[in-house]
Amino acid sequence: MNSETSDRDARLALASVVEPGSGQLVKEVAQFGPAYVWDFLLRTTKESALAERARRYRPRIMAHDMERHGLRFVVPGDPEWPAGLDDLTWSGAVGGVAGGCPLGLWVAGSGNLSRLMEKSVAIVGSRAATAVGEVVTTDLAAGVAEKGWTVLSGGAYGIDAAAHQGALAVGGATVAVMAGGLHDFYPAGNLGLLSRIRDEFVLVSENPPGQTPSRLRFLARNRLIAAMGRATVVVEAQLRSGARNTVAWAHGLQRQVLAVPGAVTSAQSETPNLLIRNGEAALVTCVDHILEAVEPLVPGAERPSEPPLPLDGLTPEEKAVHEAFPARSAMSVDELAYEARVPVRRCVAALTILELRGLAAPTDDGRWRLVH
Amino acid sequence: MNSETSDRDARLALASVVEPGSGQLVKEVAQFGPAYVWDFLLRTTKESALAERARRYRPRIMAHDMERHGLRFVVPGDPEWPAGLDDLTWSGAVGGVAGGCPLGLWVAGSGNLSRLMEKSVAIVGSRAATAVGEVVTTDLAAGVAEKGWTVLSGGAYGIDAAAHQGALAVGGATVAVMAGGLHDFYPAGNLGLLSRIRDEFVLVSENPPGQTPSRLRFLARNRLIAAMGRATVVVEAQLRSGARNTVAWAHGLQRQVLAVPGAVTSAQSETPNLLIRNGEAALVTCVDHILEAVEPLVPGAERPSEPPLPLDGLTPEEKAVHEAFPARSAMSVDELAYEARVPVRRCVAALTILELRGLAAPTDDGRWRLVH
Repeated sequence: MNSETSDRDARLALASVVEPGSGQLVKEVAQFGPAYVWDFLLRTTKESALAERARRYRPRIMAHDMERHGLRFVVPGDPEWPAGLDDLTWSGAVGGVAGGCPLGLWVAGSGNLSRLMEKSVAIVGSRAATAVGEVVTTDLAAGVAEKGWTVLSGGAYGIDAAAHQGALAVGGATVAVMAGGLHDFYPAGNLGLLSRIRDEFVLVSENPPGQTPSRLRFLARNRLIAAMGRATVVVEAQLRSGARNTVAWAHGLQRQVLAVPGAVTSAQSETPNLLIRNGEAALVTCVDHILEAVEPLVPGAERPSEPPLPLDGLTPEEKAVHEAFPARSAMSVDELAYEARVPVRRCVAALTILELRGLAAPTDDGRWRLVH
Repeated sequence: MNSETSDRDARLALASVVEPGSGQLVKEVAQFGPAYVWDFLLRTTKESALAERARRYRPRIMAHDMERHGLRFVVPGDPEWPAGLDDLTWSGAVGGVAGGCPLGLWVAGSGNLSRLMEKSVAIVGSRAATAVGEVVTTDLAAGVAEKGWTVLSGGAYGIDAAAHQGALAVGGATVAVMAGGLHDFYPAGNLGLLSRIRDEFVLVSENPPGQTPSRLRFLARNRLIAAMGRATVVVEAQLRSGARNTVAWAHGLQRQVLAVPGAVTSAQSETPNLLIRNGEAALVTCVDHILEAVEPLVPGAERPSEPPLPLDGLTPEEKAVHEAFPARSAMSVDELAYEARVPVRRCVAALTILELRGLAAPTDDGRWRLVH
């Protein structure tokens, strides 16, 4: 590959070698363009595992793998790109995963991803669901699917599988966003279900074929589910559960979070009950409650206007200064300039803009802090 | 009985012949004093069932009945009078029951009612509770009782019984407010439980011995439970349930309402789930959640300051004008004066006071409406 690499090919190459949610790299891609970053990565003399993977990357092998598995690569700006993902562009880190828009998505299946995502609700929860939880999930998924909403989930056992099945049972649409590559069906027990979703709709992954799921990839996958759904419904989840991570992403993206209450004697209801108690989720018990949360009030306003991103319209330099802030403490202009890799004089200018927008404020001792 | 009837005896007599929550009579008692109202009732030539019952009332029979059943009659101002009930003084009607402070309470048992009510939590719910609901109730009641809180409930089957039993099981305090008179134990299946509550703590009723429970008396009883508890916890209740009525009273009295979530497949959890969804109750799953809601923040501030009653300090005439307003529509001064039985000139003066207090406001067309 050389400097004539197309942006699409560069995104495909980059997505093939980086871990999902590599915030810094995504920022550099936004700033310099994917082809520039890819070429830089190939030419750098600094040794790194990433550079090593980049040098070993072979476009023709990727093209062959994709053809073999019936995959296409969808990038921002493509007609099939789901608009919801754009809200991830300047998202921060959640649960150890840097935010950022995916470089692209591998998609398998006959459906059109962006069209399927125009009206979609994520239904998520625990693998070790209770029988009641699975029945409730199937009913809720069937109900929203009947109303024309795509049921979005993660293709796992338990709540995920029940959500997909509920939609399929009524001839509704469903999409699975997988944590591993789309070279095979994982988990194996969901082979039939996932094949059917691919045949009738789409499977989606941020990871290249051949890549196996990992904890990091599960967490990064959760941000895609949160971003693509208009709301996220948590049916059952224990206290420590990936669903909490999905919820954190949904909050960060100003998506609605809904939760199904359960018996206080059921460990699988601890997370939904807690989310409701803390005001982090609205309580839902039936399909109508979900539809009430996602259906537009004004007919025709199919997609509610996006929440204004406070970073919209900032220059890359201003964004870099904003990103350089620690979450809770203050920093001097010199420290910020260093962290943001911006000359001090321009850092001062950027801080003025951030202050005008209410994003940052000077402290009494002459340092700066984020305004939350 | 004659014009020398003591206020206490007059309250006892009145409470023996009126239905609980007779708002108009309670207002007249507040305005003219119980002895005056009782004497008026005895002497009126206007025929009514109430006047007939008053003429048939025999103080010595009541005294005999009370002695036989070990009852005492507690009136406002008595050391044993629970302070929380005073908040009912100017309460409006809820669920077809006029508000108002009870004229007095029949009390049976060795405990001191006001002391038991200083720190009390009402735990209420359905008679037809699930096994899980009863276990959860027992655990919650035991937990708050262990922390020195009196568990207040209605002595019925199901959640009520489980609440009382939970408190007793850990040597805690519990009080039952009954809808019928305290001449026998109702329901019969709770004989042992109610006897024990009477022996160790107290049973309470607004109704005279001999009176059987009725729908109206159950509803009126609910307002006492709501008023006496610092918070009301709803564990299980179907959609149509007396618990909803207790909750309405608690809201009217600015008491906290807490609810235990349950499976969406359980009809017995429909009311708690709905209360939480509508923001009418905070979700609680454990003893700590309840204690967090009722324990004072400042040690020593055992009873949180009463919510200011907007009608405090109004003259009876001003209160009468305020009461004369319809809930949602406007009325002319003439209509209000007629309804309040107040001369028009004085009605205008009363409206000025109500306006100054932010309770009423003139409309554009010269009429008046309540400010909510």
